[in-house]
Amino acid sequence: MDIRQSHTVKMDGRKMIELTGVMQVDRFDSTEFLLETVMGKLKIRGTGLKMKHFDTGKKEAAIEGRITAFMYVEGGFGKSFFKRST
Amino acid sequence: MDIRQSHTVKMDGRKMIELTGVMQVDRFDSTEFLLETVMGKLKIRGTGLKMKHFDTGKKEAAIEGRITAFMYVEGGFGKSFFKRST
Repeated sequence: MDIRQSHTVKMDGRKMIELTGVMQVDRFDSTEFLLETVMGKLKIRGTGLKMKHFDTGKKEAAIEGRITAFMYVEGGFGKSFFKRST
Repeated sequence: MDIRQSHTVKMDGRKMIELTGVMQVDRFDSTEFLLETVMGKLKIRGTGLKMKHFDTGKKEAAIEGRITAFMYVEGGFGKSFFKRST
């Protein structure tokens, strides 16, 4: 497999997620990140989320905060996929 | 932090998830795993999911298959939380 196409997610204690294979951050706020990864669109939900690190060259990202969920989304980022609690 | 209470999730290429801090596997099938972790109930969704490894002593688990989502669930495991596509 082409190393540029690899995609990994490491979460430590629901307070930090480190990702590789991230091509783009579409948008984010403190409760939701929408990322484009080499393996599809990825939605990360939580509370108090912050962008800790993002490097387009290395395709790396790190997000801090209380992690609730992450989900790969086929097609577009519809808000109906997750019910927003806020 | 007590090492026995640590909880990590490592996913590689949407085809394998390795977890620590797993106390119990409540139930699973090829599309859904319901785990009790030291940081809450965790639901993992995907297709072709298989239990690769589970060690209650070490609190470790590994799941193979195509990963779609994982989500921490407050309270019980209601099926309404995720819409089942099957």
